[in-house]
Order: sequence, then C-alpha cells, then structure tokens
Amino acid sequence: MSTLVLLRHGQSVWNATNQFTGWVDVDLTEQGVAEAERAPALLAEAGILPDVLHTSLLRRAIRTAQITLDGIDRHWIPVKRSWRLNERHYGALQGKDKKATLEEFGEEQFMLWRRSYATPPPPLDDDSEYSQVGDARYAELPSELLPRTEALAQVIDRMLPYWYDQIVPDLRDGKVVLVTAHGNSLRGLVKHLDGLSEEAVVGLNIPTGIPLVYDLDDDLRPTQPGGRYLDPDAAADAIAAVANQGR
Amino acid sequence: MSTLVLLRHGQSVWNATNQFTGWVDVDLTEQGVAEAERAPALLAEAGILPDVLHTSLLRRAIRTAQITLDGIDRHWIPVKRSWRLNERHYGALQGKDKKATLEEFGEEQFMLWRRSYATPPPPLDDDSEYSQVGDARYAELPSELLPRTEALAQVIDRMLPYWYDQIVPDLRDGKVVLVTAHGNSLRGLVKHLDGLSEEAVVGLNIPTGIPLVYDLDDDLRPTQPGGRYLDPDAAADAIAAVANQGR
Repeated sequence: MSTLVLLRHGQSVWNATNQFTGWVDVDLTEQGVAEAERAPALLAEAGILPDVLHTSLLRRAIRTAQITLDGIDRHWIPVKRSWRLNERHYGALQGKDKKATLEEFGEEQFMLWRRSYATPPPPLDDDSEYSQVGDARYAELPSELLPRTEALAQVIDRMLPYWYDQIVPDLRDGKVVLVTAHGNSLRGLVKHLDGLSEEAVVGLNIPTGIPLVYDLDDDLRPTQPGGRYLDPDAAADAIAAVANQGR
Repeated sequence: MSTLVLLRHGQSVWNATNQFTGWVDVDLTEQGVAEAERAPALLAEAGILPDVLHTSLLRRAIRTAQITLDGIDRHWIPVKRSWRLNERHYGALQGKDKKATLEEFGEEQFMLWRRSYATPPPPLDDDSEYSQVGDARYAELPSELLPRTEALAQVIDRMLPYWYDQIVPDLRDGKVVLVTAHGNSLRGLVKHLDGLSEEAVVGLNIPTGIPLVYDLDDDLRPTQPGGRYLDPDAAADAIAAVANQGR
C-alpha cells in the first residue's frame, strides 16, 4: 500500500484580483499563505510525513510546499519539480479579468473555456507579456512542447508521463509522496486515479490548502474512491462554495 | 569555464543566543533573514543566475537558499540536498553556551575545539537531546556514517565525495551552481578549491549572506585565488569584525 498526498496551493494574487492565471507565475496572497499554513497541522495530526515532494515550476505551488514542509519539520526531504505539474495554460485568457471576459464573450463561451474537457481557449501570442516563450525555466523544452493554450485533456496528456515516470517509482519505493500543484493538474490526476469520466471531472473541484490523501493498492488504485480530505468539513464547505458560485 | 557560487546562511537563533549549533536544526533569526535577502540583488547585479542548487539538510541553509532564489526569480531550479553539506558536528558542545564553555574549559581548550584542524570536541551522547540519532532525515545512513563529533578535517572528508560526485558533474554540464551551506562545510570547500594548507584554513572566515563566486577553469581550479565576494567591502568588514573578536 502506498500513500499519496495531493495539495492545491492557496489563494494567489490573481485569484484575488479575479484574473486568469495559468502559467503566469504570480505569488500567494497573505490569505494564500494562511491557507498553506493549515496543512502542516492536518498532516501532523494524521501522522502523515511526506518522504518526497513533487511540485510544479510555479511559485504559488513551490511556496505552498515550503510552508507545509517547514511546518511539519520535513523541509529537508528531496524535491523534484516539473512543468508537467503546472496549472492548465489558459491561452489568450492569461492575464485577463474574468468578469470582463465573461461580458465580452458571453456566458456560454466563457463556461466552455473554463470547464469543457477538450476545448481550449484561443492560443496565447508568443509576444504577449503573459507568454512563457523566452522564460528561462522552459528554455530546455523544444518549442512544440511548450503549451500556448490547454484544455483539461491536454493537461492530462502532459501530466500523466510525469505521474508514471517520476511519481509512481517513488510510491513503489514505499515513500509517502506529496504533490503540491494546481486546480487543474490535480483534477487531472484525480480523474486518472478515480477513473472518472470526462463528464464527471467537469464537476470536480479541489479545495485549496487541504491535503487530499489517497491510500493506493498494489495496482496504484485508490482503496477509497475520491481519497480523503484531512479536514473533510472544511473541504465540503469549500466545494459547496464553489458549486454555489455558478448559480 | 564554470561558475560556482558559495553562500553561507545568515544569523541563526543560536548564533544570536551564543550557543554551539552544529547539526541542531535551528531557524534563522529576523537578522538572518535580512542577511539572506541581500543575496538576490547582489546576484542580479552581477548577472549570475544559478541553474541548480545544492544545500545541506539544515533549515537555516535551506531557508537562505529559498529567500535567495525567490528574490532572483529562480525558485524553480532543481535542488539537491545532502547531509554531506551540513555544518560541522560540534559533538558534546552542541547546545552549550559558548561563554560558559569557555569559562568551564579555559581558553586554550576552547580555541582548540573551535579552531584546530583535526582535534574534535568530545563526542555527543546518543541519548542527548541534541543528538541526531533517531532523526528521520538521517534514518537511511548506516550508524557509523552519522557523526557524533567532527573537526574540520572530518568535515572535509565527508564533504568532498559530494563535491566530486554531485557538484562537479553539474559544473561540467556548464551549469551555474549555487551551494548554500555553513561556515565549516564552506571553509572545507574553499580549502580544497584554493589548495589552502591546514594552517591557512584556520584563519579563514566566510561572511554570512554574501555570495562568494568562483570562476573555475577546465581543471576546476579557481582562475582567481579566493574567488570574489559580490559585495567585497561588506565581506572585508565582516571578516575584519570576526578577526577582531579574537583580540
């Protein structure tokens, strides 16, 4: 049996200003830091001590991991990072105000870009100030590998090789694995683990700052579908709040 | 030509309370954080962008690296950590007040333990509250590898394999390498790089929070003996202050 802990970063600056973020590397807000600070106590109470960390290349996930691990005295564990755990690339929407985008394109188009499984927003121009072309952290990627836009389907396609090649070996070694990442890269991983349909994952929301623990069997399937949040009441409240936003 | 950047962590809690620290995992003070916060601007001004980080397993070095890299937008670079970069193990002195130790054992013995090249303090009892026996981060080390005390000679013996096996390959790959570590693990590395005698290294002090840059030739020898501090005036002041402490 293996233990996998998924942790979504806390509120970022652009969450607070209601802008599409994607691969733009904004920091956590004070609230985001406070959300991250809940995680260590929850892990300690559950007796779950990560042996290895996997994060995206984005500051909001890296800081969330640092806060979490420092708080549980595991700041010294090995770390692996990959662009494959990054948030969904939001294409031409990156940097845009969500409300203005909704007004400009209408609710149907807006919801399609936000939530459809396979329809990405228009691609981001390489000369946009929000483009990652020329960003040093992706300099070693062949140009065709660097996304200009993604739907969840593309996130899963580029995330799964990292799951199989980097995370699974750590789980097979018996390590407790912590993955700190983003709403969409984690939704993709949960879809894979729980065998969710494309329709089911559209309605899936993962709250920020609450560790989601999967106990996995020898075939790396969850012993309990959906895993378990270490603060189930707070998780249920957060999920309900997101569901009500759409009404 | 390769670029190696050495960075000693800022003031720790036990630096401030005048206790021997060694492998005890105390945090930075506010002053220590402020010292670490100088490093990013110095690196940016010099145009030196680390491609990979090597740190010890101790919080004060790890945090110094996080502050430095976050400040220069390089928080996403690969990280490797090792106990081989840890501070010198101070043996039975760990946790003890320096002034009380000086009074108890006299100046000659005190200076021998602090500064002799090969005479370690008495070993730390495994059941001491300051022992690292049973510390999860060293759980995979065979017992005989875990120090109970060290002089600088032993630090160099256990640090050099990491230099050759982990740091040198990154330098050979053309990467700019940042090593954030401790007074004595860095003194050991500088002794090696500059070919210092055992007598010369006794008088060597490395200031906190000021990047020390070595440009290395194809045989990984410094093109400029002693390297260059990115803030040479501040480094000279700090070194002079330490030298005057002894008078």
